[in-house]
Amino acid sequence: MSDVLVVGCGLLGTSVGLALQGSELSDVTVWDRDAEAVRIAVTRGAGRVWDRAERARIAVVAVPPAATAEVLAELHQLNIAQTYTHVCSVQSHVQAEVEMLLADASRVVGGHPLAGREVGGAASGVLDLFVGRTWAVCPGRLSDSTAVAEVRHLAQACGAVPFEVEAEDHDAAVALLSHLPQVAATALAGLLTDQAERSVRELSGPGLADTTRLAAGSPALWAEVLEANAAHVAPQVHALAGALQALARVLDQLADRDDPSLGRAELQAKLEQFLLRGNAGRRLVPVKRGEVAGAFAGVRVELSDEPGQLAQLLLAAGEAGINVEDLRLEHVPGRPRGVAELLVTPGVEQSLARALGEQGWRLVISI
Amino acid sequence: MSDVLVVGCGLLGTSVGLALQGSELSDVTVWDRDAEAVRIAVTRGAGRVWDRAERARIAVVAVPPAATAEVLAELHQLNIAQTYTHVCSVQSHVQAEVEMLLADASRVVGGHPLAGREVGGAASGVLDLFVGRTWAVCPGRLSDSTAVAEVRHLAQACGAVPFEVEAEDHDAAVALLSHLPQVAATALAGLLTDQAERSVRELSGPGLADTTRLAAGSPALWAEVLEANAAHVAPQVHALAGALQALARVLDQLADRDDPSLGRAELQAKLEQFLLRGNAGRRLVPVKRGEVAGAFAGVRVELSDEPGQLAQLLLAAGEAGINVEDLRLEHVPGRPRGVAELLVTPGVEQSLARALGEQGWRLVISI
Repeated sequence: MSDVLVVGCGLLGTSVGLALQGSELSDVTVWDRDAEAVRIAVTRGAGRVWDRAERARIAVVAVPPAATAEVLAELHQLNIAQTYTHVCSVQSHVQAEVEMLLADASRVVGGHPLAGREVGGAASGVLDLFVGRTWAVCPGRLSDSTAVAEVRHLAQACGAVPFEVEAEDHDAAVALLSHLPQVAATALAGLLTDQAERSVRELSGPGLADTTRLAAGSPALWAEVLEANAAHVAPQVHALAGALQALARVLDQLADRDDPSLGRAELQAKLEQFLLRGNAGRRLVPVKRGEVAGAFAGVRVELSDEPGQLAQLLLAAGEAGINVEDLRLEHVPGRPRGVAELLVTPGVEQSLARALGEQGWRLVISI
Repeated sequence: MSDVLVVGCGLLGTSVGLALQGSELSDVTVWDRDAEAVRIAVTRGAGRVWDRAERARIAVVAVPPAATAEVLAELHQLNIAQTYTHVCSVQSHVQAEVEMLLADASRVVGGHPLAGREVGGAASGVLDLFVGRTWAVCPGRLSDSTAVAEVRHLAQACGAVPFEVEAEDHDAAVALLSHLPQVAATALAGLLTDQAERSVRELSGPGLADTTRLAAGSPALWAEVLEANAAHVAPQVHALAGALQALARVLDQLADRDDPSLGRAELQAKLEQFLLRGNAGRRLVPVKRGEVAGAFAGVRVELSDEPGQLAQLLLAAGEAGINVEDLRLEHVPGRPRGVAELLVTPGVEQSLARALGEQGWRLVISI
């Protein structure tokens, strides 16, 4: 009996197998109806080929959402595992289907690791995909507590942080926190197609790139997700459209400079309210380590573009006994020099700056 | 006579002074009605204090947009410079005001460096703020060609790439490419304020963080920008709201699973069309170097969390004669190890991987 059986060797399935190597659940079998995907996953070290008979402690179904419940039920009928889970980004409809297909769904517990890449397939799986990420664990009304504990254990063994939540609450939350941003980025990017002439696209800055990044996602995947969660996503999209419509009307009136009847101060107050509310919302968004203002202190140093410069800089920091927590490079084509920002624990930046300065590094001064 | 007079020692003005040091326009005088801002800018090396009489080749007005035309006109009446420019993010209304205030506006040329930080003030100015960025240069109908050439020269001396465009075209372009993303991010973040309970915010991923990053911008600054450009921004916001409303109606119908009259295939086609259009728009967005797929090849290496590890890694790359073009660190709290991705010129990654492997570095294998 293996620790984990992974059915489906795409990005998520392969990454689960890779992540489990070296963990307490390191004996992994993998399977996919596509033999080539199995071959790649096994070559990459995600596990052994499943012989379609060997039992497992935990079966992880990592196939497309629409096929998930059926594959789960099939494995369950073969009594192939002690606990069953999946990795779908929408939970309640899979749960409902499973409960319809199985007389006893107590050993099935939904799961959703909040991780992904813009590319798919076994070759894109990486061992650290789940590290530090939230892994939603969604027990059904009938789930037994041992099965829930097993799925939490799986998430932890992959390096993720399990977070228990009911399927409906999960779906409502991701509608707002994941599916609505996807829709917003897509709608925004979509407007560029008939308007942004090549000549003026030079005028776009990094803000547009950030705000539309999600729009590169797979249409097939997102069509499936948005349809599966349409009941929760639709009201959110209505709300966003409504907020924008209200702002557009304020801007319409502000654009009409000659009409004295408009109450400009009141319109300006509405505009500022809109912006302040955005500030408040942004403060609620968890951001990556290093992006939180004040979490680290930075020391900025000029670099030449020669091989080894950055290494010498980090060596100098290491010799001063200082651990560099993170690093940002600003390195621009066509310019000989770049700037490296070394991020360190607050309080340490001054001794780092002193040590580097003494060794002749050119600091980008900040007061 | 100085090369450049900078009036206004905020983020942009101070950064202009810093950027010009070492350039062909390195003799800079600075002024601000706030004496403390002048002191900080001078201490940081942005230039000498302006004595309110010395003439300059180019005067750069870097005060808030609403005060810009007036300050420009005042300097012009004192005949303080040969060429006058500013750094406003909306151009046409400043141009109109200047042409109203001055009998001869031929030596005034608008400018807008597409660069900024989320923080303001003289202390936040940095010498590389403009490096590699586009700097819009907006001549008026009456601008003389020497003045236009001077402003282009200023942009280049700051490390930016000048881009000539008419004021109205500039304002229409930034409405779509900069102001609309700002509005979209703000509206999206705003929806979180009354909905995102602390307990479920664990379920947000990096997509939400990217898509709402702009929402942290200064409400005072953005209120001024959106009002100044309201005539161009309003129709864009209407268009975005309309696209979202149309999608919300599709999702409403997809959510209604039991109604057989809806033409599900047609609704799914509309959903996919929306997503494909987003894909197409995203492909039009210029992204930073290193973000373009295929621009660099990556080699991923496991690191321990000890000081000096990354330095040793980069040294090893340097010793192998390989220039690391960029570097990404994935470094997660609570986990002993991280992963560094070294980005190199495509074709070089295999010799880098070989050299590192031979020296005992643990590569994160990818096929």
